[in-house]
Amino acid sequence: MEMKLPGQEGFEASSAPRNIPSGELDSNPDPGTGPSPDGPSDTDSKELGVPKDPLLFIQLNELLGWPQALEWRETGRWVLFEEKLEVAAGRWSAPHVPTLALPSLQKLRSLLAEGLVLLDCPAQSLLELVEQVTRVESLSPELRGQLQALLLQRPQHYNQTTGTRPCWGSTHPRKASNNEEAPMREQCQNPLRQKLPPGAEAGTVLAGELGFLAQPLGAFVRLRDPVVLGSLTEVSLPSRFFCLLLGPRMLGKGYHEMGRAAAVLLSDPQFQWSVRRASNLHDLLSALDAFLEEVTVLPPGRWDPTARIPPPKCLPSQHKRLPSQQREIRGHAVPRLTSAEDRHRHGPHAPSPELQRTGRLFGGLIQDVRRKVPWYPSDFFDALHLQCFSAVLYIYLATVTNAITFGGLLGDATDGAQGVLESFLGTAVAGAAFCLMAGQPLTILSSTGPVLVFERLLFSFSRDYSLDYLPFRLWVGIWVATFCLVLVATEASVLVRYFTRFTEEGFCALISLIFIYDAVGKMLNLTHTYPIQKPGSSAYGCLCQYPGPGGNESQWIRTRPKDRDDIVSMVRKGLSDFSSVLAILLGCGLDAFLGLATPKLMVPREFKPTLSGRGWLVSPFGANPWWWSVAAALPALLLSILIFMDQQITAVILNRVEYRLQKGAGFHLDLFCVAVLMLLTSALGLPWYVSATVISLAHMDSLRRESRACAPGERPNFLGIREQRLTGLVVFILTGASIFLAPVLKFIPMPVLYGIFLYMGVAALSSIQFTKRVKLLLMPAKHQPDLLLLRHVPLTRVHLFTAIQLACLGLLWIIKSTPAAIVFPLMLLGLVGVRKALERVFSPQELFWLDELMPEEERSIPEKGLESEHSFSGSDSEDSELMYQPKAPEINISVN
Amino acid sequence: MEMKLPGQEGFEASSAPRNIPSGELDSNPDPGTGPSPDGPSDTDSKELGVPKDPLLFIQLNELLGWPQALEWRETGRWVLFEEKLEVAAGRWSAPHVPTLALPSLQKLRSLLAEGLVLLDCPAQSLLELVEQVTRVESLSPELRGQLQALLLQRPQHYNQTTGTRPCWGSTHPRKASNNEEAPMREQCQNPLRQKLPPGAEAGTVLAGELGFLAQPLGAFVRLRDPVVLGSLTEVSLPSRFFCLLLGPRMLGKGYHEMGRAAAVLLSDPQFQWSVRRASNLHDLLSALDAFLEEVTVLPPGRWDPTARIPPPKCLPSQHKRLPSQQREIRGHAVPRLTSAEDRHRHGPHAPSPELQRTGRLFGGLIQDVRRKVPWYPSDFFDALHLQCFSAVLYIYLATVTNAITFGGLLGDATDGAQGVLESFLGTAVAGAAFCLMAGQPLTILSSTGPVLVFERLLFSFSRDYSLDYLPFRLWVGIWVATFCLVLVATEASVLVRYFTRFTEEGFCALISLIFIYDAVGKMLNLTHTYPIQKPGSSAYGCLCQYPGPGGNESQWIRTRPKDRDDIVSMVRKGLSDFSSVLAILLGCGLDAFLGLATPKLMVPREFKPTLSGRGWLVSPFGANPWWWSVAAALPALLLSILIFMDQQITAVILNRVEYRLQKGAGFHLDLFCVAVLMLLTSALGLPWYVSATVISLAHMDSLRRESRACAPGERPNFLGIREQRLTGLVVFILTGASIFLAPVLKFIPMPVLYGIFLYMGVAALSSIQFTKRVKLLLMPAKHQPDLLLLRHVPLTRVHLFTAIQLACLGLLWIIKSTPAAIVFPLMLLGLVGVRKALERVFSPQELFWLDELMPEEERSIPEKGLESEHSFSGSDSEDSELMYQPKAPEINISVN
Repeated sequence: MEMKLPGQEGFEASSAPRNIPSGELDSNPDPGTGPSPDGPSDTDSKELGVPKDPLLFIQLNELLGWPQALEWRETGRWVLFEEKLEVAAGRWSAPHVPTLALPSLQKLRSLLAEGLVLLDCPAQSLLELVEQVTRVESLSPELRGQLQALLLQRPQHYNQTTGTRPCWGSTHPRKASNNEEAPMREQCQNPLRQKLPPGAEAGTVLAGELGFLAQPLGAFVRLRDPVVLGSLTEVSLPSRFFCLLLGPRMLGKGYHEMGRAAAVLLSDPQFQWSVRRASNLHDLLSALDAFLEEVTVLPPGRWDPTARIPPPKCLPSQHKRLPSQQREIRGHAVPRLTSAEDRHRHGPHAPSPELQRTGRLFGGLIQDVRRKVPWYPSDFFDALHLQCFSAVLYIYLATVTNAITFGGLLGDATDGAQGVLESFLGTAVAGAAFCLMAGQPLTILSSTGPVLVFERLLFSFSRDYSLDYLPFRLWVGIWVATFCLVLVATEASVLVRYFTRFTEEGFCALISLIFIYDAVGKMLNLTHTYPIQKPGSSAYGCLCQYPGPGGNESQWIRTRPKDRDDIVSMVRKGLSDFSSVLAILLGCGLDAFLGLATPKLMVPREFKPTLSGRGWLVSPFGANPWWWSVAAALPALLLSILIFMDQQITAVILNRVEYRLQKGAGFHLDLFCVAVLMLLTSALGLPWYVSATVISLAHMDSLRRESRACAPGERPNFLGIREQRLTGLVVFILTGASIFLAPVLKFIPMPVLYGIFLYMGVAALSSIQFTKRVKLLLMPAKHQPDLLLLRHVPLTRVHLFTAIQLACLGLLWIIKSTPAAIVFPLMLLGLVGVRKALERVFSPQELFWLDELMPEEERSIPEKGLESEHSFSGSDSEDSELMYQPKAPEINISVN
Repeated sequence: MEMKLPGQEGFEASSAPRNIPSGELDSNPDPGTGPSPDGPSDTDSKELGVPKDPLLFIQLNELLGWPQALEWRETGRWVLFEEKLEVAAGRWSAPHVPTLALPSLQKLRSLLAEGLVLLDCPAQSLLELVEQVTRVESLSPELRGQLQALLLQRPQHYNQTTGTRPCWGSTHPRKASNNEEAPMREQCQNPLRQKLPPGAEAGTVLAGELGFLAQPLGAFVRLRDPVVLGSLTEVSLPSRFFCLLLGPRMLGKGYHEMGRAAAVLLSDPQFQWSVRRASNLHDLLSALDAFLEEVTVLPPGRWDPTARIPPPKCLPSQHKRLPSQQREIRGHAVPRLTSAEDRHRHGPHAPSPELQRTGRLFGGLIQDVRRKVPWYPSDFFDALHLQCFSAVLYIYLATVTNAITFGGLLGDATDGAQGVLESFLGTAVAGAAFCLMAGQPLTILSSTGPVLVFERLLFSFSRDYSLDYLPFRLWVGIWVATFCLVLVATEASVLVRYFTRFTEEGFCALISLIFIYDAVGKMLNLTHTYPIQKPGSSAYGCLCQYPGPGGNESQWIRTRPKDRDDIVSMVRKGLSDFSSVLAILLGCGLDAFLGLATPKLMVPREFKPTLSGRGWLVSPFGANPWWWSVAAALPALLLSILIFMDQQITAVILNRVEYRLQKGAGFHLDLFCVAVLMLLTSALGLPWYVSATVISLAHMDSLRRESRACAPGERPNFLGIREQRLTGLVVFILTGASIFLAPVLKFIPMPVLYGIFLYMGVAALSSIQFTKRVKLLLMPAKHQPDLLLLRHVPLTRVHLFTAIQLACLGLLWIIKSTPAAIVFPLMLLGLVGVRKALERVFSPQELFWLDELMPEEERSIPEKGLESEHSFSGSDSEDSELMYQPKAPEINISVN
């Protein structure tokens, strides 16, 4: 069962006022079907094929000053949320969730039931409208005239024209005067007008006490054609709805609250949808009743009715409002989640077409190429954005740091057979080539930790057997490339469906820990070289645990997502786009200003292989006997597993549904590229490269696209990633050029670069669910957050799962650090096995919440399994709606 | 108009179900009338003289498993908030504000209207109750038997006995079995039972689908005498209410939601009150309708009905629910705040009896003494609490640091005429004497910045005129004491009513800035003495901007109030009580571990005056001509103003209503003590002392009393301060003893102590409204918080007020730092004048929100002025209820 679209099944079971306002549907198109290459950025409404209802701006004009000085004044406005005019302060309140009192809604209902309802009123001006509305029997001609004059009176709008200077009324509340000059010019300057999309319509509610009326007067008008009604509304939009609520003195703030109730009703998408299509009073009242049936009621003693609730992070999706009604109508519980929905919600790897086996040799590869070719031109055009510039700087620094550090490590490991220059050259060549050819060009290639560990082992092995290292390594590379090509040919990449969150997070945690360990280790090493001055001992240079100011700084800036949401203005956004670069520059500046004797980035000055006496091309045999070229197949087999796991887990993480990638993945193509580059780098004696999880994630995150908020209080939505090849390409070109940039780069202190590493590691580690569960281990039950999984899985079971994962991680770490590291690739593969074995320990329901289901489980456990829990307490539909929202990326290194 | 108490005016205007549940009144007794000395700590219920309704524990038992395996299972419980049983996870959810759907409340109403209502049912056991309830006509005898058997069936309770191990059901949801062993022993172990106060009663709601019933069966029972109904409820409380909601298959989760609605209703204090006194069905339904009239309604499209709302920080006070109804009944708007309420809400200095002029010489002083004497014994008994121990340690360190630093400054300023030893001795003697005698013994005396500046000026003056300093100073002291005694005699302290928030915050900001400036300055001085090692230069010792780890640490810990609220367990609370001490120990430990060459606390080793050759007693004339003793009156006049301002502003801040001090203030007595100590310290050549704002606030804050939460989700309330003399006394005895503690104290690095200063300054500065307004200056309107004053005062006016305050502060700072410092006391007095002049710039309404009203303004501006705003939009009652809550202290240095 797929999500229902309006106009399909939805309409069958529901009566007219139940229908869905199509404009508000949060469409999350199936990532598999995807959009056409022509319009990847504007998917929201086109997909649905239903004309969108215009956005409605609602304004409440109140009649104040009875009986002496009657005047209309705008006191509230609504688009998504309520903004209240703070009269005395002369400003609009912050947008907030409107709260109503029940009696005001009931009074409104009875007033409308007895009042005048004009649907498709043909009035073309305010005058005509007023004439139509006042054509009520109960009014004497004299009163009618008075009322008409009153309704035609120009209302007072609070226009915040420039800065904080209000347009009407002096700043002194007692001297508030009526300056009538609210010209169109100011209307255009109204900041709200500029935010509302073209085609928006207005609705006006007029409410207030009018003592000369003998009985309340209610009128509701839907105009046939939207008309600009003079200066009735604050923003000069064509009006569609008009609601009049006048009457004699009533209890307290009766008309104010009734007016608010009418405005809140009109701002409800479901009510809007219904009332746009209502054909008589009955339909109108049904829509109101439908609204009442769905309101949330908070008990008076436990909630302060005057508290202003800030806009929630996610709005309830409108399409969720329908099925719940259907459920009640059908009269029995429906399984809450079908497996398709499960995958949609949870699934980082819905069985997208990329992962469907074709059954032909290289079938997957061919399909990948076919899928990617049409996007190729846009992969360059889509990079034309300032954000990409910032991303390049950030990722370039990370890549260079990586090249330096791991180049240094490689030099140590291979005793100078390879070194920093090889690292730079290899990174530049392999990275750029990958960006040009790969299926997922957002991937940043690097020589990752596990591969390096393997290389170190290989070197010591070749030294033990007195082998010529580089030729032996070449053969390993040839074999690995061959094995990988076999994997490509047999479409082995479809097996990544078995990489569940358990595997991904285990691997990601391991890599993050390596980043953190290395960064901290390097920093501690510095304190050896530049020790803290002890009293009494004479000193030689000084650096006292100066913890990478750049990196740390950026960490503080970024771990405040609330702040980030708030910052919208362009200057601020621009600054925040470059916050990491600024942090780095700040670190460099501080270092230079204080004149600290920190080690600086060192780039080799001569362009030649580190191993003296060799050319760039490695000879295939060297001094080794020929049969070593065959024996190399054994280590190559292990390395192939490692490469496959490393590459594909990263690819799975990068291609998660939550990132909303439009251009699709290319698992087969990526592996093919890695195989080809393996051959190339082996032949040139350069390091080996696969996709780097953490840097690639940072890369993607620095390319997030977010919608601009249009309505007050609306939060920007995550729209997707700027998918293109250019940023990666430029990063690697710059990396290559850096070989010749030594004079500039020498000002960058290494601690700043370690800070980047530390930050990336911490950010990646802190964003995974595994970390949250580890924290749960240490937290008393009372203080635990309201995680969805805790609502469904007993705490002991959660802890058991976490403990198993921790044990796996510990085992991997130990193996990585000991001579047994040669079997590390097998252990990585073992993660999948452990996950499989967990099926015997945990029930499918538990795994569903703790991890996700493997392909067989999804098939073998249909709705029945999940339903059993449902029938128990019927509680599942109480899971927060938030959980059903298309999630923002799970592993999330925020850069902006 | 004072707050209404139940049984007074409240009962006149309202009908029966409108009355107030007295038990829920948040009684905030008028601080003026105060409690008797006998029972200062237990004021909440005694004051009211009304028997309190017992607390009600409500439980929802649902009938599940129709038709095969019928069983009752507890699925929800309520005391203040809702806790839902997460069936699959086997745990109680976090407490949250219950949300209901409107239809379920309406269905419940109609079921009750048609159902059985037994008020004052005499049943003495579950069997009797079940018989009474099933005596319904519509049931055949056979069905009645079945139903009775079902109702007598033992329900399944989820008992979390030990740790996280659930009592019933296995951890595996599919294998959930019925273990029937839920004995009384476990009920006693139930953690909830231990939290509920004695006398608590239970209410049970039984709801569910029962297919064999032809029509729904509703019953509501109020038991005449509360009876323990077997194992019906989770905790073995006597039951008062019993509600049965059964029927044939209904739409969706009809009975579940109806049962929740009944439970939420019963948990509402107002409904509880009414239903305890209801005499027939009509009363019951009226109570339900009254509940419905007061519910808060959230529109479905803008709020996710399934989101769990965490308990709000403050509950709406029940006595607020009444007047709003009365308002509507009377049919016209009532001015929202009378001036008495204003003062109650806002007033840091309600005209309490301490500040009423008696008109007799020394009348105020005599009254102060009379008022304080009865409390004297309790001033020592009330100190018997662990918290006081922590407070002593914290304040001792602050005091010693103060003595050291300012002693050093004094030595500089007076060229060795006084020094660190005088500072220690003076602090100890004056502080201890003050604690023993003063009206407000929570005050910590110290030589504050302004007084020291004055002393420096006096010294340079006496040097310029070649005077013998200490004798001249003695005469200044004698004159100051005389002037102060005149001020005491004439009851001048009542003028502190003119010290509004403007003056207080200006002064507090100045003092805080001096703290911060000194701490940072000292730290930077250290980098001169121990500079950062530049490359190339040879080093002598090393300390690279090591920013007082202790102080910083504690700051990070404390600026997370949310964390603090969460931490309740004793171990945790105990640790947090000592967080500052732990931070200091950590700092010392780190310093020792790293062996840093930081300067340590230096205490003089010999007990003799710093100025060699003088005895402890200063001779009255020395080498000075006699007429200098008269001339000393002029500087003494200025110093008297300074002392008066310094002392009384601090006293006003410390005696704010928000601190809920029970034992009253003693403005006259305090000033008298200061005058006497002035004489003493001048005669001994010790520094001069007045109350120190920042340290005293830290002292009070380290003595906060908070209630323990009893109901799940309830937040601890601020109850008051442990008012006693002992902590201060011990602090000063320790300070005196410290003169001989040099061997121990030498391990404390000075940067740690500067950290304490920095923390105290930042904490005091960040807690005042002035700082919030300064931040507003830099913040775009969109991102400003929802401050009450921003709802009522235009932003430009707020900025103007802030700018004026900033200008005053700048002027004070400049004057303090220049030779013109001699007129600093006059400028301080000028603050009051500036505030008075602001009345010409700002309207009373604006000053009401920005500052507070001065005595004349309060008289001259009755309700009319504030009402004008009200009549404008009728918006005031929308100010959040939170604002009417008795506030927690405004200037708030959190220590715990």
